[in-house]
Amino acid sequence: MKIGLLGCGTVGSGVLAICDHPQTEAVRQIEVKRILIRQGRSITDPRMTYEIQDIINDEEIDTIIEVMGGTTTAKTYILQALQAKKNVVTANKAVIAENFKQFMETAKNHHVQFRIEASVGGGIPWIENLLRVKRIDEISSISGIFNGTCNFILDTLHENEADFDEILQTAQQLGYAEADPSSDIDGIDTKYKCLISACIAYNCTLQLDQIDTFGIRHITQQDISYFKKRGWTCKLMAMSQNHDSFVSAYVQPVCFPSDALEANVPANFNLTSLRGHTIHDLKFYGQGAGKDSTAHAVIQDCLDIANHQASLNPIVLDNHKLINNSKDIFHFYIRTHLQASFIDEIKQISISHEKSESCYFFITSKITVSDIHAHIRQWQKEDPEIFFAQIVQ
Amino acid sequence: MKIGLLGCGTVGSGVLAICDHPQTEAVRQIEVKRILIRQGRSITDPRMTYEIQDIINDEEIDTIIEVMGGTTTAKTYILQALQAKKNVVTANKAVIAENFKQFMETAKNHHVQFRIEASVGGGIPWIENLLRVKRIDEISSISGIFNGTCNFILDTLHENEADFDEILQTAQQLGYAEADPSSDIDGIDTKYKCLISACIAYNCTLQLDQIDTFGIRHITQQDISYFKKRGWTCKLMAMSQNHDSFVSAYVQPVCFPSDALEANVPANFNLTSLRGHTIHDLKFYGQGAGKDSTAHAVIQDCLDIANHQASLNPIVLDNHKLINNSKDIFHFYIRTHLQASFIDEIKQISISHEKSESCYFFITSKITVSDIHAHIRQWQKEDPEIFFAQIVQ
Repeated sequence: MKIGLLGCGTVGSGVLAICDHPQTEAVRQIEVKRILIRQGRSITDPRMTYEIQDIINDEEIDTIIEVMGGTTTAKTYILQALQAKKNVVTANKAVIAENFKQFMETAKNHHVQFRIEASVGGGIPWIENLLRVKRIDEISSISGIFNGTCNFILDTLHENEADFDEILQTAQQLGYAEADPSSDIDGIDTKYKCLISACIAYNCTLQLDQIDTFGIRHITQQDISYFKKRGWTCKLMAMSQNHDSFVSAYVQPVCFPSDALEANVPANFNLTSLRGHTIHDLKFYGQGAGKDSTAHAVIQDCLDIANHQASLNPIVLDNHKLINNSKDIFHFYIRTHLQASFIDEIKQISISHEKSESCYFFITSKITVSDIHAHIRQWQKEDPEIFFAQIVQ
Repeated sequence: MKIGLLGCGTVGSGVLAICDHPQTEAVRQIEVKRILIRQGRSITDPRMTYEIQDIINDEEIDTIIEVMGGTTTAKTYILQALQAKKNVVTANKAVIAENFKQFMETAKNHHVQFRIEASVGGGIPWIENLLRVKRIDEISSISGIFNGTCNFILDTLHENEADFDEILQTAQQLGYAEADPSSDIDGIDTKYKCLISACIAYNCTLQLDQIDTFGIRHITQQDISYFKKRGWTCKLMAMSQNHDSFVSAYVQPVCFPSDALEANVPANFNLTSLRGHTIHDLKFYGQGAGKDSTAHAVIQDCLDIANHQASLNPIVLDNHKLINNSKDIFHFYIRTHLQASFIDEIKQISISHEKSESCYFFITSKITVSDIHAHIRQWQKEDPEIFFAQIVQ
C-alpha cells in the first residue's frame, strides 16, 4: 500500500520511523511515497512536497495519513482525499469531532475507509476494541483519562509541592504540553475524545457544544491538600452514559478513592474504560500521546485497510442524540474565595463546608452534572478561579 | 455459522445465554446446533446429546466450542474436531498449554482455525491485541495478574483481618474458587496462562515444566502486615521476558508499591500487560473469569471465524525456546519459621532480617529468579509453609 503522509511533526516523523525501518513483514507492506510539508519548511527528503495535489493526484497512493493538526486545512484535505477515493487515516481529534458524520458519509459514498484509532488514547487500541465489544454487547457507559498532559500535571501536583505553573512549564519542556496549553488544561482536547468515543459507543452523532466541560486550569495545592487529607486523587475525566433516548457526556475533574485504578494512572498515561452487558468493565492503559505510540495506532489503521479488516467492524453513526446531563447525580467538591457573594447559594446545596485563611471548601449534596456546570458558569463570572470536582465514593 | 458446544457448565451456559438471545446482528449469525453433556446429566434441551459423534459427524456444524475442561477427553475431542475440518474455539488453558503446537499444526493441516481468546484473561481481549501489536512491534515482555481467585484472596487479605482459609471459603461460596482450589492457589492455572501468552508473544513453543512456579497457598496475615508496613501490595504474577536466544518465564507472588496499577486491581479482576518497542507499555483490565465475560471472549473468536478475520493475525509457533530464569534479578522477601536449620543460608543472601515471636522475615540481596526458586524448593522440604515474594521497587 502506498501512503501520502500529510504533516511531518511528532506523529508524522514517528510514522516515517516505523515505515522506513520496518521490523515486521506486515509493516513492509506499507510504503510512504509522498510527504506534505508546510510552506517554509525545508525539503530534506526527496518524497517531500508543498503541494497537496502532488499527493491527491498520485494514482498509486491509495491511503492518506493526516497528522497535520488544525481543523481548516485538515478538513479540506481529508474531504479532497476521500473524494479522490483514497482511504484516510487521521489522529486529528479536533477535525473529527467537528466533522465526524460528514467524513464517514463521504468515505462511504466513495467506497473508501475513514479510520481514527490514533485520535483517542494514542497508542491504546481503544476504538478497535470498542467496536469489537459492540459486536456482542450494548455499551452502557464509557469514560477515560484521555489527556496525558493533564494527567502529568495532576500526578505531579499530588506527588510534590510544586504549583500548577511550575509543573506546566516542566510539561512543556518535556514535550508533554503545547506552547499554548489551553486545549489540554481547559478540557477541550478531552471533550473531542469524549464526543468521538460516545458517538462510536452508541452509534450516534452528538453536538460538541452540549458537552459540559470544565478543566484543571484553576486547581491549586490547596485543593490537592484537601483531597489528600481525605485519601482522594483528582483526575480529569471524560464520562458518558447511554440513557437510551439521550446520552450524558461531560468532562470534569473527578476525585477517586486512592485505591481506584483511575487514581493510580501515573505521569502522562491514559486509561480508557467501557462497560458492556456481558463484558462488564473493561479498561485499557497505555501511552495516550507521543511519537511512537500514536504512530503505532496510525499504522494499525493502515494495516487494517491493507488486510481489508477495516470494514469488518464499522463505525455507524445512524442517528442523532441529544446530550442531557440532568440524570447523572453526584456529590461535588467546590473551592471558592472567602468574599464571594454566592457563598449562601453554595451553602444551600451543600452538606458540609470548611474555611481556611483564603478559601471556602464545600461538599455538595447530590446534584446533577448539568446543575453544577450551570452554577459554576454563573459563579465563574465573579470568581474566575473557582474550582470544582466530582466525588466518587 | 452452526456451533457444536462441548460442555454446558458455567462458560457453556454463558455461551448459550448470549447466542440464544442475541442482542446484535453479529451474534445472530451464530447458532448453537448441538450441545454435548456428560453422561448422567439430564437432557433439558432438545439440542443436547451424550455422543460426541453426533456433533463431529454433523456436516452442518462448522465450529466446535470446547468448554468442558479437563485435559484427556478434551484433547481427544479437540483433535477429532480439527481432523473433521471443524474450527475449534476453546477456553481450556490446561489442554492448550499441554498441546499447543499439536493443536496449531492439526488446525493448519486441515485448513481450519484453532482459537483461544478466552483461555487467558477471560473477557479481556488479550490474545487478539497481543497479536495485533505484533504486526508492528517486537514484544520484549509480558506479565499479568491472570488468576481472579488468587487476586480475590490477596485483595481480601489486604482489606481485612480474615485469614487465608476463611477467605478461600468465601471465594468458594461466591463461585470464584473451585472445590479443589490447588490449580489456582498453587499457581498452576497462572502457569498455563503464562506459557500461552509467552508462546504467542515470542512465536515459539516453551516447556511447561521449565516455568518456575510458586503460589499463594502459604501466605499469612503475618506476611500481609509486614507488606502493609512498607506500603506494599502482594499479587500473584506471571512474568516473562524475551532474551532473544531464550526467554524467562515464571509465576510468583510479587510485592508492588501501593500506587502501582497492579497493586490496585481489586476483587477477582485481571490485569494483563505487554511491552513493545513502539507501543511501550500497554495494559488491559477486566473480568478474568466468570460466565458472561468468558462466554463473550469465546463468541468473539466465533465472530472472527465467521468474518474470516481469524486468519489475519495468526498465532505462529515456529521455533522452540528454552526457558532460563537466571538473567532476571530482584530483591525477594522470605518468611520462614524460627527454628529452620537453613536460617544461616538465607542470611548469606540477605541484606536485612527481622524476627517476630514465631518467624524470621528476610529481604534478600538481588538474586536470580532461578536461584530463589531452587532455594525455596530445597527449604520447603523442612518448612513446607515457607513463603517468598519478589519485591518491585
